[in-house]
Amino acid sequence: MDELQLIAKGNLEMLTNTKTRYDLLKTKELQSVAKIEASLLRGARKYFEESGFTEIVVPHLTRATGACENFMTVFEVDFFGGKKYLAQTGQLYLEVMTPFLNKVWCAGPSFRAEQEVDDRHLIEFPLLEIEHKGDFNELLMHIENTIVTMVQEAVKKNVDELEFLGSDLDMLRKVKAPFRKITYDKAVEMLSEFGVGWGDDLKSKHEKYIVEQFGEPVFVTHFPKKIKFFNMKEDETRPEVVKSADLLLPFSGESVGAAEREHDYEKLKQRLEESTMLKLLKQRGGSISDFDWFLNFYKNNKAVQHSGCGFGFNRITQFVINSSDIRASTTFPSNKEAVI
Amino acid sequence: MDELQLIAKGNLEMLTNTKTRYDLLKTKELQSVAKIEASLLRGARKYFEESGFTEIVVPHLTRATGACENFMTVFEVDFFGGKKYLAQTGQLYLEVMTPFLNKVWCAGPSFRAEQEVDDRHLIEFPLLEIEHKGDFNELLMHIENTIVTMVQEAVKKNVDELEFLGSDLDMLRKVKAPFRKITYDKAVEMLSEFGVGWGDDLKSKHEKYIVEQFGEPVFVTHFPKKIKFFNMKEDETRPEVVKSADLLLPFSGESVGAAEREHDYEKLKQRLEESTMLKLLKQRGGSISDFDWFLNFYKNNKAVQHSGCGFGFNRITQFVINSSDIRASTTFPSNKEAVI
Repeated sequence: MDELQLIAKGNLEMLTNTKTRYDLLKTKELQSVAKIEASLLRGARKYFEESGFTEIVVPHLTRATGACENFMTVFEVDFFGGKKYLAQTGQLYLEVMTPFLNKVWCAGPSFRAEQEVDDRHLIEFPLLEIEHKGDFNELLMHIENTIVTMVQEAVKKNVDELEFLGSDLDMLRKVKAPFRKITYDKAVEMLSEFGVGWGDDLKSKHEKYIVEQFGEPVFVTHFPKKIKFFNMKEDETRPEVVKSADLLLPFSGESVGAAEREHDYEKLKQRLEESTMLKLLKQRGGSISDFDWFLNFYKNNKAVQHSGCGFGFNRITQFVINSSDIRASTTFPSNKEAVI
Repeated sequence: MDELQLIAKGNLEMLTNTKTRYDLLKTKELQSVAKIEASLLRGARKYFEESGFTEIVVPHLTRATGACENFMTVFEVDFFGGKKYLAQTGQLYLEVMTPFLNKVWCAGPSFRAEQEVDDRHLIEFPLLEIEHKGDFNELLMHIENTIVTMVQEAVKKNVDELEFLGSDLDMLRKVKAPFRKITYDKAVEMLSEFGVGWGDDLKSKHEKYIVEQFGEPVFVTHFPKKIKFFNMKEDETRPEVVKSADLLLPFSGESVGAAEREHDYEKLKQRLEESTMLKLLKQRGGSISDFDWFLNFYKNNKAVQHSGCGFGFNRITQFVINSSDIRASTTFPSNKEAVI
């Protein structure tokens, strides 16, 4: 994973241009990225379909139930005089189908109102999400297998493009399950020189530092409950942490967010009421009533154990093409200045 | 195709409920529809992938270039003080990749600000789109093959669900290429009793009438230029019509819109300047500058013959499950009153 050893024939730097993208469409660089993206998407679907996941068509113009991934960066839409949001996640819509279909998945744009025009932020990106009856360990296995199948599909179909862009094919061929796993506690220990303390969220530079120590995909597990999504399930033996994991990849950092979910109605309601997300929703004029349909579902249906995750698609492409700039990872990258 | 002969064990009527959808998730009816949707999507992708189409990730929060399918029903989004639109089509983004990748496809939500809460309108639905180097006849062949592969995948994987919902399996098994084709001229003739004259657009009731005469998929081809999208290619022998086709399906009517595209820069520019779409864009405070990147591309790159289409996914599901109500065709149908 030594960046100096990589000799790109293609010019990834060129692909960070979002202003006159239409001039790049004719380049082998951009076309190579497009082909690799297609293979990675196909690889993910291949794993989902062969493993018995059913695709669900989820909405993308929703109540807060679709926008609650990061409420700070939600786009509002005037909805016939009312208000709806551009979806950031299909998670809650997948969750309510899981009791009946066992394993489900969806793919779609995730929208973020990101002010920054830089190497880490896009306004819009495909989010691949799965949800299944089963526990946290089974979930990590599905994530590993999905990533491996995606990478294998690209390596099988796009050797020319990967070599042209300067990908590390040897490294990609070695991506195998199981992935390395460290706890959040251990991550904080590794980050002591950055002044990170227990309870702090990990920033981009911290993720980068950790994954660089290993030079391969690494899960960070068991984050503090207070910094994570309201329905992540508490660890029974240690209720201050949740059964969650972030998958860090070289070049991109956090690429998958995953957790076992709370499914008890009373606990869900309480966790939601206490959540930072609800506070932000209220600050923007919204209310908990946006979650009525979701809570009603849990009130009226038998709860089942389930777990799920979201794959930030561009972060995986970054890993595969060895790009630390997210703008190089897709045909039409969207940010505040992009002309598309 | 006699509706009276269909005996549904499931209750499609129930699935028209958009207000308390969360109560229906536990029903075999809704779960059957979800499974059939998944198979139809898989079938479409199977055809695209086996036929050498490359998937392109297209943007969904765009300039007018993504919203120009039906500008009357476009959602506006406050974009950091500026204005963007929710995409209705990825067509123009696919078109600019076609010269280089030959055959491309995309899938994503198409957004329409539809006021009506009824059996024909959704706020959001998956639109599957293809674009390829090649002519109008090749395009019709791809459409036929896509529909046949979708239907076959559902018939192969979902016999139980299709029978439960009352689908006509015999009819579905008979769906084979080539499909029947009639010209727009002929359609107008058939619709004389409705008072439809040459140059009029076909309304939903007209499409329904035509497709009911045949009881099977039917293409209507060669529409008047003045009622169609600005970049549909004129027929050389008869420039008042364009090389376009709408595929009508029983139960749903227009399900696919297709055309060979204009690729000459000067003509494209002129047709755009004269288009109703541009007039509507200007009425809403927009300008032709939204199309600069698209026109620039045609100015700076060698033009090639190409053709493409969009599959309105729910209309195809309607056909497969024999539902004349679009709300029954998906897990989370979105309209003005839907609680999702």
